[in-house]
Amino acid sequence: MKIRVDVMLKNGVLDPQGKAIGHALGNLGFSGIGDVRAGKVIELDLAETDSAKAIEAAKQMAEKLLANLVIEDFKVSVI
Amino acid sequence: MKIRVDVMLKNGVLDPQGKAIGHALGNLGFSGIGDVRAGKVIELDLAETDSAKAIEAAKQMAEKLLANLVIEDFKVSVI
Repeated sequence: MKIRVDVMLKNGVLDPQGKAIGHALGNLGFSGIGDVRAGKVIELDLAETDSAKAIEAAKQMAEKLLANLVIEDFKVSVI
Repeated sequence: MKIRVDVMLKNGVLDPQGKAIGHALGNLGFSGIGDVRAGKVIELDLAETDSAKAIEAAKQMAEKLLANLVIEDFKVSVI
């Protein structure tokens, strides 16, 4: 079962990567760009076939390794 | 309008970050983990209010800056 974990910086946490992307897009001539946020996505191929159990396992993985819960939020979904 | 751009390595391109995450999860005691792929997500807040035009603009941004089309695929969606 394929699981997707999205990890984004929490609202209010400064996102220098996003800011740099926003500036670079402006320099390339794109206009009308407001806030830009950059995050990570991790796609996991799990042997677990029960979707509830797979999601629960992925949540534990996110809490223990994939996300830094002090500054990041994560979201788990089945793909 | 908020647009989300997902950037993942193409299938067949070696993903050392994903491999490292897979190994680290194994070391933490998680089992049944197959392939792991790591990618980026960029959320853009665009002034454009027409969704078709916003998606088109985001595609151009992805082609010009956000994704390396030699090794990466991208997907644009409205959030």
